[in-house]
Amino acid sequence: MISGQHFIAGRWQGRPLAHNQSFNPATNRALDWHFAEADLADLAQITELAHSAFQEYRRVSPSSRAAFLNCIADEIEALGSTLVEVVNLETALPQARVENERTRTCNQLRLFADNLLSQDMEIRDPALPDRKPLPRPALRLTQIPLGPVVVFGASNFPLAFSTAGGDTAAALAAGCPVIFKGHNAHPATCELIARAIDKAIRHCAMPEGVFTLVHARQHAFSESLIAQPKVKAVAFTGSVKLGMHFAGIIQQRPEPIPFYGELGSQNPVFALPDYLQDNLPAFADALIQSVTMGQGQFCTRPGLVFVVADTTYPGLCQALAERLANCSSGPMLTAKIAQGYRHQSAAWQQCAGVELLAQGQGEETGCHGRPRLFASDAEAFLQHPELREEIFGPASLLVRCKDVTQMQMLATTLAGQLTATLYASETEWKAQSVLLQELELKAGRIIAGQMPTGVEVCHSMQHGGPFPASSDSRYTAVGSQAIRRFLRPLCYQNLSDSLSE
Amino acid sequence: MISGQHFIAGRWQGRPLAHNQSFNPATNRALDWHFAEADLADLAQITELAHSAFQEYRRVSPSSRAAFLNCIADEIEALGSTLVEVVNLETALPQARVENERTRTCNQLRLFADNLLSQDMEIRDPALPDRKPLPRPALRLTQIPLGPVVVFGASNFPLAFSTAGGDTAAALAAGCPVIFKGHNAHPATCELIARAIDKAIRHCAMPEGVFTLVHARQHAFSESLIAQPKVKAVAFTGSVKLGMHFAGIIQQRPEPIPFYGELGSQNPVFALPDYLQDNLPAFADALIQSVTMGQGQFCTRPGLVFVVADTTYPGLCQALAERLANCSSGPMLTAKIAQGYRHQSAAWQQCAGVELLAQGQGEETGCHGRPRLFASDAEAFLQHPELREEIFGPASLLVRCKDVTQMQMLATTLAGQLTATLYASETEWKAQSVLLQELELKAGRIIAGQMPTGVEVCHSMQHGGPFPASSDSRYTAVGSQAIRRFLRPLCYQNLSDSLSE
Repeated sequence: MISGQHFIAGRWQGRPLAHNQSFNPATNRALDWHFAEADLADLAQITELAHSAFQEYRRVSPSSRAAFLNCIADEIEALGSTLVEVVNLETALPQARVENERTRTCNQLRLFADNLLSQDMEIRDPALPDRKPLPRPALRLTQIPLGPVVVFGASNFPLAFSTAGGDTAAALAAGCPVIFKGHNAHPATCELIARAIDKAIRHCAMPEGVFTLVHARQHAFSESLIAQPKVKAVAFTGSVKLGMHFAGIIQQRPEPIPFYGELGSQNPVFALPDYLQDNLPAFADALIQSVTMGQGQFCTRPGLVFVVADTTYPGLCQALAERLANCSSGPMLTAKIAQGYRHQSAAWQQCAGVELLAQGQGEETGCHGRPRLFASDAEAFLQHPELREEIFGPASLLVRCKDVTQMQMLATTLAGQLTATLYASETEWKAQSVLLQELELKAGRIIAGQMPTGVEVCHSMQHGGPFPASSDSRYTAVGSQAIRRFLRPLCYQNLSDSLSE
Repeated sequence: MISGQHFIAGRWQGRPLAHNQSFNPATNRALDWHFAEADLADLAQITELAHSAFQEYRRVSPSSRAAFLNCIADEIEALGSTLVEVVNLETALPQARVENERTRTCNQLRLFADNLLSQDMEIRDPALPDRKPLPRPALRLTQIPLGPVVVFGASNFPLAFSTAGGDTAAALAAGCPVIFKGHNAHPATCELIARAIDKAIRHCAMPEGVFTLVHARQHAFSESLIAQPKVKAVAFTGSVKLGMHFAGIIQQRPEPIPFYGELGSQNPVFALPDYLQDNLPAFADALIQSVTMGQGQFCTRPGLVFVVADTTYPGLCQALAERLANCSSGPMLTAKIAQGYRHQSAAWQQCAGVELLAQGQGEETGCHGRPRLFASDAEAFLQHPELREEIFGPASLLVRCKDVTQMQMLATTLAGQLTATLYASETEWKAQSVLLQELELKAGRIIAGQMPTGVEVCHSMQHGGPFPASSDSRYTAVGSQAIRRFLRPLCYQNLSDSLSE
């Protein structure tokens, strides 16, 4: 069922290697699927082909591009239960979650398709032939695709942010061919989705080379890929460290190109005293659910919770601890993620002034990770820079502040975030303009009274934020505006529409 | 009249130095105005102040910001003939040109003001409380300013792309304070404009630090300025070399920030055979006027003209030579620009296969430059990379091609351009989709049957293009869309409008 090959030039090619295996985190064992490894010698062919495809694909009409995106969605659905089973084997994500993510992935593709049919991004200034002292020519501003795009997907969204996920959908909608670097944590999933795209390419008679899947475990391949002159943009979801390493390589190119890194975020939650006093159980339910869902492997999981150490505080700690103690450890996406989570949990626990408030049940062998809730005071938080690093997994740090003023002060010390959340009573909302204004400078999305997990795919979503949440806060990774990542303006002056369309 | 001081924190400060003088290119002599030199020790104060101003200025209502921009325009006009005289002394640009540029500058400010009052950049997705399986929260996408912006102006537009030029107007409209690095070629002009802004700040009660003028001839100051953590974007107009040097410094920052470099362009013109045969005198008139106006010191001056070596070619050469021979040398903006122009002209002339077709009259002493027209065949153009470098001055290279196919081939070899122009008969337009499609990949603006000089300030203008025309082809330096350079999206989720406005 799984060939383990690359999909290049519309053909499945490459020889699977014995040691390049897929892995099942639930059993902590290798799966019996083997994958090819791309070679630096393949680079020129891959990017040349994407460039040739670009010349043709950028002139494909919006309606044909929309039909192509819809067809990809249909073909993904047609993979049926096989897809769900393979994703589950490779990621340990439960069936219901995989099915929901598949729905989201197909909806994303269809959202971009709908926009291609309905949205007009043109701006016009009509000719003013009689204007004095000089006439004005007719001017028309359009948006054209940048060229071939390299996409690196995310381990935590094997469908919605991987092979045919948000970046791929946005790039294909824009008119850019995609070179997708197969994700090492779910390569068989990548192959299945690429097979769906393969069918859609043939069904819609799209140019060969409009989509490439290439498997490569060696960083050297990825490093050379993003340095290729025919590559015109790179979208990456992953760690700050690897993302900024790739950004550095891109900066060495003779021609600068856009790099979109969706990197890391702690997603601070600020819960004000009056609100907490009146809503403690509901808040505790929501927080523990948000921290632990999907083993905490969401880029919007709340990793920092700021509260005031008032009379409500002990009750809050107790309510959170009780709820967390009922949660169980579960398999994380990869052994590396589980090790990183355990390592960072241990590092937090060793910080002076940080205590482990509660932890969930179960063992932490293999790929399993146990949920944890830490607590510290403001001083300890200020003292330990490691508490500001994203902890990727089911953990959160409760930071108790002397008062709201100290809470505001801590907000000013935060780095850039994908989200910032404020829970406040009606009275507190009206009084909290200082905190709100500070959070506006720190985040891409401000949320009132809801946990940050759950990212709506719509027109007005912003998934991105000041560095290091993302490398370019001007663009979103989620929602219809993501198409702007892969477009540039082109102005036609004094040119009749019929000639330039 | 000219104090020679910086404008920092709403105060005129700094001690003018004897050797930091303004210069008159028409007389090739120093002017009796002396200027202060900023110190690295001033940096923290300057950027801290801009950051403080940002906290206040970003919350100033759009209508108050619009009033501020309009007031700056009014105060610039109120400078009257003094401004025109000072610009003329520092740049040798004639009075009529300076007056036109002043009009354009004030119109730019007022265009951004009008847009602040009329444009709604928000996108909304209303709440769907009854949606299954999950309700949708209300989402609202706004645009917020990035923070303090450093602007480096252009020598060739001492008003429209300098102190209160396009970048400054766009940044102030966006809600970003501006730190303007005074231009060494027109520092007294910078001071006069800053005095107008000073008056507008006081009249409109804007925060001190919303605008800073700082004089610094040492690159070290500029290099440290753009590395300051409180600086959140940099806009630069100038050479590829200096622009990419600044880009490299910005890449070393821990936090990546946007860099907008408007760098260099040859603005190729393609004139097809049938068109030329029917329109030779008009084309020759337009080309020579476009190449020589303002001593060729426009970033959109046509520096390359591709034609077919058919029976019309000798007549074209003769028509162009006759017209150019009637043009005179004139003072260029600076001694350095004049030297660079003469140096590059000499280098072109020494290329094997390149001939000097014609030159204008007059001497080339001091800051003066003489117009020139060169010619080469396609082979010589392919052989000499120096012919692809922007020549900043009144010169152009006629490249004769064997046929239209060779012309198309040469188009594929071009680097990124601000503009690409096509002159063609109606029949040729219909047949020239290949050339047009190639030019779309190379330029930010495609022009039919008009010379590229003359950049309309409007909504649909794109002034920018693939590298090296600009460092970021996704943004424009001219027109109302330029405000996007200084904004980032912020999404409010589940937040009532009254709390976030």
